[in-house]
Amino acid sequence: MLIHTIGQELKYDGRQLSSLWAFRNYRLQGDSIICFRGPCQVELTEMVDLADVIANAPIYSESMLHFIIEHFDLDLEKTVVRQRLFISQIKEVIYKRTGRILSRQGDDLFYGNKKLSVSIATLSPVSTMIHTGLNISSRNTPVPTVSLVELGFSENEILTLGQEIAETYANEISSIKLARCKVRGVV
Amino acid sequence: MLIHTIGQELKYDGRQLSSLWAFRNYRLQGDSIICFRGPCQVELTEMVDLADVIANAPIYSESMLHFIIEHFDLDLEKTVVRQRLFISQIKEVIYKRTGRILSRQGDDLFYGNKKLSVSIATLSPVSTMIHTGLNISSRNTPVPTVSLVELGFSENEILTLGQEIAETYANEISSIKLARCKVRGVV
Amino acid sequence: MLIHTIGQELKYDGRQLSSLWAFRNYRLQGDSIICFRGPCQVELTEMVDLADVIANAPIYSESMLHFIIEHFDLDLEKTVVRQRLFISQIKEVIYKRTGRILSRQGDDLFYGNKKLSVSIATLSPVSTMIHTGLNISSRNTPVPTVSLVELGFSENEILTLGQEIAETYANEISSIKLARCKVRGVV
Amino acid sequence: MLIHTIGQELKYDGRQLSSLWAFRNYRLQGDSIICFRGPCQVELTEMVDLADVIANAPIYSESMLHFIIEHFDLDLEKTVVRQRLFISQIKEVIYKRTGRILSRQGDDLFYGNKKLSVSIATLSPVSTMIHTGLNISSRNTPVPTVSLVELGFSENEILTLGQEIAETYANEISSIKLARCKVRGVV
Amino acid sequence: MLIHTIGQELKYDGRQLSSLWAFRNYRLQGDSIICFRGPCQVELTEMVDLADVIANAPIYSESMLHFIIEHFDLDLEKTVVRQRLFISQIKEVIYKRTGRILSRQGDDLFYGNKKLSVSIATLSPVSTMIHTGLNISSRNTPVPTVSLVELGFSENEILTLGQEIAETYANEISSIKLARCKVRGVV
Amino acid sequence: MLIHTIGQELKYDGRQLSSLWAFRNYRLQGDSIICFRGPCQVELTEMVDLADVIANAPIYSESMLHFIIEHFDLDLEKTVVRQRLFISQIKEVIYKRTGRILSRQGDDLFYGNKKLSVSIATLSPVSTMIHTGLNISSRNTPVPTVSLVELGFSENEILTLGQEIAETYANEISSIKLARCKVRGVV
Repeated sequence: MLIHTIGQELKYDGRQLSSLWAFRNYRLQGDSIICFRGPCQVELTEMVDLADVIANAPIYSESMLHFIIEHFDLDLEKTVVRQRLFISQIKEVIYKRTGRILSRQGDDLFYGNKKLSVSIATLSPVSTMIHTGLNISSRNTPVPTVSLVELGFSENEILTLGQEIAETYANEISSIKLARCKVRGVV
Repeated sequence: MLIHTIGQELKYDGRQLSSLWAFRNYRLQGDSIICFRGPCQVELTEMVDLADVIANAPIYSESMLHFIIEHFDLDLEKTVVRQRLFISQIKEVIYKRTGRILSRQGDDLFYGNKKLSVSIATLSPVSTMIHTGLNISSRNTPVPTVSLVELGFSENEILTLGQEIAETYANEISSIKLARCKVRGVV
Repeated sequence: MLIHTIGQELKYDGRQLSSLWAFRNYRLQGDSIICFRGPCQVELTEMVDLADVIANAPIYSESMLHFIIEHFDLDLEKTVVRQRLFISQIKEVIYKRTGRILSRQGDDLFYGNKKLSVSIATLSPVSTMIHTGLNISSRNTPVPTVSLVELGFSENEILTLGQEIAETYANEISSIKLARCKVRGVV
Repeated sequence: MLIHTIGQELKYDGRQLSSLWAFRNYRLQGDSIICFRGPCQVELTEMVDLADVIANAPIYSESMLHFIIEHFDLDLEKTVVRQRLFISQIKEVIYKRTGRILSRQGDDLFYGNKKLSVSIATLSPVSTMIHTGLNISSRNTPVPTVSLVELGFSENEILTLGQEIAETYANEISSIKLARCKVRGVV
Repeated sequence: MLIHTIGQELKYDGRQLSSLWAFRNYRLQGDSIICFRGPCQVELTEMVDLADVIANAPIYSESMLHFIIEHFDLDLEKTVVRQRLFISQIKEVIYKRTGRILSRQGDDLFYGNKKLSVSIATLSPVSTMIHTGLNISSRNTPVPTVSLVELGFSENEILTLGQEIAETYANEISSIKLARCKVRGVV
Repeated sequence: MLIHTIGQELKYDGRQLSSLWAFRNYRLQGDSIICFRGPCQVELTEMVDLADVIANAPIYSESMLHFIIEHFDLDLEKTVVRQRLFISQIKEVIYKRTGRILSRQGDDLFYGNKKLSVSIATLSPVSTMIHTGLNISSRNTPVPTVSLVELGFSENEILTLGQEIAETYANEISSIKLARCKVRGVV
């Protein structure tokens, strides 16, 4: 799985969650995970989570650490399972780095009652995709949130954290492929 | 997803990891998770993890809390992802109940350097299956282990823990199915 | 499988056959079958059956009992088989209620030489979908048709019939899932 | 889809429901439906329907019209849907030939309270398979049954009926493949 | 697999690579291969190969022998394997007809350093598709090319060659389906 | 894709075509291609090609260059397409090394009327597999054969040839995966 961290800021407005975005822009050909930081503002018309659209709950954050994951298969349920595992891994990495324990509820991470993350998984015509964003700032968010800074990360550490999370995910995906290739069938 | 907790002790010798074991013995028809407690002794000839067979590492524990999961599809990679998520959930439930933080390495759980669990995922002719065992006793195990008792669970709480873990998994599987059914595709 | 009957009239113009229509409008999250009544007018530009487009055969009925089915998988052939079974079930329910025997030809139902139904199955980006319409009125249809009223249903019974058909389908889908989970493999 | 009617009697004992039975014995290479007549006696050890094994309900009939269907894919749920459609078709053919109306309950056919049929669908290592048997005799069956003879077929007509049912199924499978190839996707 | 050769010239501009093009225009319902001749000019906005888009390499040829293949499944990787095999077959047919040996590099054919072909495989909402074009003329192409005429085919033979290639592919696809239906599984 | 060449001779008797043979014996975990040389003798009871079993055509060669390929998916048709492509590649490599042109008929290679190869593709419980053998000796074969030696390879070059063929296949499989990840979908 290919990993890329984007150095400059980039606003996430939903259009990054489109097939081959990683290939078009960063020449990553194959399953990939990209991380970058930037504001997050997704209008209702761009949202793929129709539960949020119905609830009229647009997504907004002044600053987030973003991940865009693409898997070139068409099994959305499988990618939702991967997404849940990815959220678990973020929790594990943050614990390792800060000693703080987040709670996971489905594809959301909380610190106490405050939300750290947004995440969605969907299908493109040629792949399945995941977006996950972690608040770097908790100001002006539509719901009570916590930020990575409040959890103890300095601004300088954010992209390093992103890179570590991306590597952790890529390693687990590799490890999963290996685990699939070592067992005999049962009756 | 169907859940069943077996009241009496049952020895796990590997033959429980066979298709429709839940239906044959407990009338569970459909995807299911069963938990029970009992010793664990899997001879090399019964093991499905060929990496362990090659390493000549039979599985033994005087007492374990066992889970047998069956999903009626044939995508082993997907079930390995589910397995990793299941292991993450066990960690989350144990934290919630004891405040103790385990570390997960792939499909293994550790407390410090001591291993709490064994787990394997495989294919049957009609389904995919997972076995996971958590040590209730750490005596006489072939590698250094930690037990649920040492983590703070009393003997009386073991099956309740098993039931809670099973429910947590079944709830997440339901939640995953729902998450798959709320998103529009992207371009 | 989720079932919903819409009380008020709704015109079917083809746009209802789009992914997550049931979730967007009626909060049904998961595989679903919806029934409602209303006129049916699908312009050539909205038709998904290209055989009808080629034949320049737009669909029109002054009043129909409609069903919209959505299955969240991407196997169109499987959904065509489901569609054929659904058409068989409509025939079975109408016989049970009226004693009248329809003949099925693929995905069409006839009473003598007169057509009762239209039906199509297709793929959306995230699911497979079926539309089936049964004439409540046979006036002004482009081909000779028979209506549910002519088969003996009163106007008041139409939605009850729709509800019964929807339940019959949902029950069979459940029963099929169970049947898949009770057999061992053969050599 | 290949069709073959076997002229001589053949006892069905369960072992005919094995992969490539049609190819090994009758050189049918590809999806196929075979029909033949003969007694039916399946011991519990040969049964694939574990619900029947649990209920200790062996299958026995002095004389049946048998169908063995093989599809070279591995989606058992899809083949269960096909099986239900096949059972519906048998009902339709019998009505067309005798004017008698059977009732279908899942994969069973009844005439009044008497059972006409047995049927099962399962997976082989390389295909999915269906067996269906229709009683030619109703003597000595373990449950109350009706026979094709009692429904009005003479002994001489049995294989012709079988051939017609097989052709009806093969035609519908072809028609389903065509129906999958004429629709554009929707949004 | 259905085969059709179009007698009159047709310009390939990329829009022919769309689902059901063969059905809409030539009534081919099912997996198909169509061949025709005509100029080739695909603007960047119509190109599906994003590697070429990134490289700003539009496709142009004054005259080509074109093939449009459609398979009604959604496994793009499988269709890429089919595409590679198709390219191998073109090489085999040209050798048989001219004694000239082309070299294949992935989905490209070369004669010495000169390129004979362009090819791409992609997904539509309901199928997978392949376009392959073989130069009839090598004039004004953006890269050094060789043409079928330079390889020894007269203008009159071009469509016959196309027909032979199409038949060769269709025969192999049939043969592959048969090969899938003659083997028992292994342990 | 993992590649391994076995230095010592090994007799191929059919049992090597079993799941995880590469992992059990050579620690290759994942899709793999192994080559080795040795006699080939497959009794009818071990053969997976039932067409050969029916024709009573056991496989025998005093010396062959063998390839065992394993792909960890369950789509046999896809692996038959891969097999055909693999056979094409063997032809291409032999041409490059000797200038001799073989003809391919399905999964067989011929030099004139003499057969160079045997090949079969099948399913295991956890994977799909291919065996291909190329005659090193043409003595005492049940049908007229040609050998790699007669095609101009010295005994010393055989394993090098095997290694080159294996690398060519592994490279193409990688290239196919990349090709799947560079195209946008079409309408």
